[in-house]
Amino acid sequence: MTHELDRTAAVTSLGAGAYAAHLDPGWVVGGGVNGGYVLAVATAALRAELAGVGHLDPVSTSGYYLSPSVPGPATVRTRVLRTGGRRSTVAATLSQEQDGVEVDRLTVLAVLGTVEAGGAPASDAALEAVRREPAPVDLPPVEECVSAADDPDGARLAPPLMQRLDLRLDPAYAGWAVGRPSRAGVVQGWLRLADHRPPDPWSLLVVADALPPVSFDLGLPGWAPTVELTVHVRQRPVDGWLRVRHATRTVAGGSFEEDCEIWDEAGHLVAQARQLALLPRAPRTPS
Amino acid sequence: MTHELDRTAAVTSLGAGAYAAHLDPGWVVGGGVNGGYVLAVATAALRAELAGVGHLDPVSTSGYYLSPSVPGPATVRTRVLRTGGRRSTVAATLSQEQDGVEVDRLTVLAVLGTVEAGGAPASDAALEAVRREPAPVDLPPVEECVSAADDPDGARLAPPLMQRLDLRLDPAYAGWAVGRPSRAGVVQGWLRLADHRPPDPWSLLVVADALPPVSFDLGLPGWAPTVELTVHVRQRPVDGWLRVRHATRTVAGGSFEEDCEIWDEAGHLVAQARQLALLPRAPRTPS
Repeated sequence: MTHELDRTAAVTSLGAGAYAAHLDPGWVVGGGVNGGYVLAVATAALRAELAGVGHLDPVSTSGYYLSPSVPGPATVRTRVLRTGGRRSTVAATLSQEQDGVEVDRLTVLAVLGTVEAGGAPASDAALEAVRREPAPVDLPPVEECVSAADDPDGARLAPPLMQRLDLRLDPAYAGWAVGRPSRAGVVQGWLRLADHRPPDPWSLLVVADALPPVSFDLGLPGWAPTVELTVHVRQRPVDGWLRVRHATRTVAGGSFEEDCEIWDEAGHLVAQARQLALLPRAPRTPS
Repeated sequence: MTHELDRTAAVTSLGAGAYAAHLDPGWVVGGGVNGGYVLAVATAALRAELAGVGHLDPVSTSGYYLSPSVPGPATVRTRVLRTGGRRSTVAATLSQEQDGVEVDRLTVLAVLGTVEAGGAPASDAALEAVRREPAPVDLPPVEECVSAADDPDGARLAPPLMQRLDLRLDPAYAGWAVGRPSRAGVVQGWLRLADHRPPDPWSLLVVADALPPVSFDLGLPGWAPTVELTVHVRQRPVDGWLRVRHATRTVAGGSFEEDCEIWDEAGHLVAQARQLALLPRAPRTPS
């Protein structure tokens, strides 16, 4: 456990399906601890619970956020709902003590199993014939993208989360950082963990919620609380940079969806995620 | 409760968050009772549980399928995880007795609240300026689309589910019914409930899983079990026909995603859904 994510998302069994965790201040962003990191902590407990049957990869994971997490101790309670030969369906709730009362932060349903390598041959010719996946998003070279480190002021002011990531944003959709949002509803770029931990199916839960929200690119800089986030890990990533694209097509009724696609350096689509988030209130000029 | 869906998805309180239901044989399809209908039954119990706070619309609903449902009695157990002024987060599990043992069929996490009418004005000008939604899918006129009733043999052989729906499929992606799948991975068409029950946010849970699976259009006619289905109801539909589009872009690693978009007759996007489903085994010629 030499890498940062593994250290800070580790859990310790308390018996009877309960696990102790410690939410690290290094993952704070905006209104609390990053939602993808908290999802990864809850899923670490599910993986520990299923280690005996070898179902370690989060195939499908849905998190419903109940209250903002804060750095400090947390407890994850797990339940195994169904175990089959190839996958298990499980539930977890992550809570924190607040003024002596246990408060739920996140509740999760998930299917864990084994995710195959990108491009692994299908089990028969008929399935092989229909194999398809979306081509990786076209990005400028890494060195032409925008990093928090490019701007000394930005780096000093950036939330702790940005120090966990080596994120290089496509400048075409990064104008919001200097007050010129594209209004396309897109944020995309290259991503790897700052300490170059190789991506795996579990770490993609963090990647799926690591970029700034697309609401920034709509010119809405406020906090956009996540109602629900579902991540499907489709293929096992190879080591290297990930390409991540977040986009919204529907901004209506007080909410927006944020669709996330993640490709690995070999060009395979490794994960898809969607979250429903509430629109931030528009900034007001002082009256 | 004069309409078929309301009658067959009704629940009766047993006290302490438990509800009795009866899964109707009219909703049988493929490997069991239709997943969207079962999700609607579980959500009917959640709506009953939240009637006191007036959170009746399923804003975000994630169902994880544990075993195939069968027609007959069922029990839904609900839990309220968090209630706020505008929405509540809730959980439900639907189970059936099988050989004297309670077997879970479906477990659900959901946020219920109030879904606004399509095109309702945003709360301020900055949000109004970024409003957007995808244009409705272009479909041939209803009378040029394909109905199960067009084919007397088909109608006789069609699963009971198809009698609950007035479904008119776009012929461009209906060739699988006569052995000529387009292999585009698309199924789309016009849909209303057979008795013309007006659509509402709750009934969209059924609509989101009512069409034949896109795997049919890939030339894979077998049963494609749903691992997970999340439905986001974005705007309240007006009465009339719905346009429904199902498409997949990723068929790899033994699974495919099925993305569903639903527009109402006024042209508003009223719901988005995604399910992860397992690829059916390819048909084998007898050896």
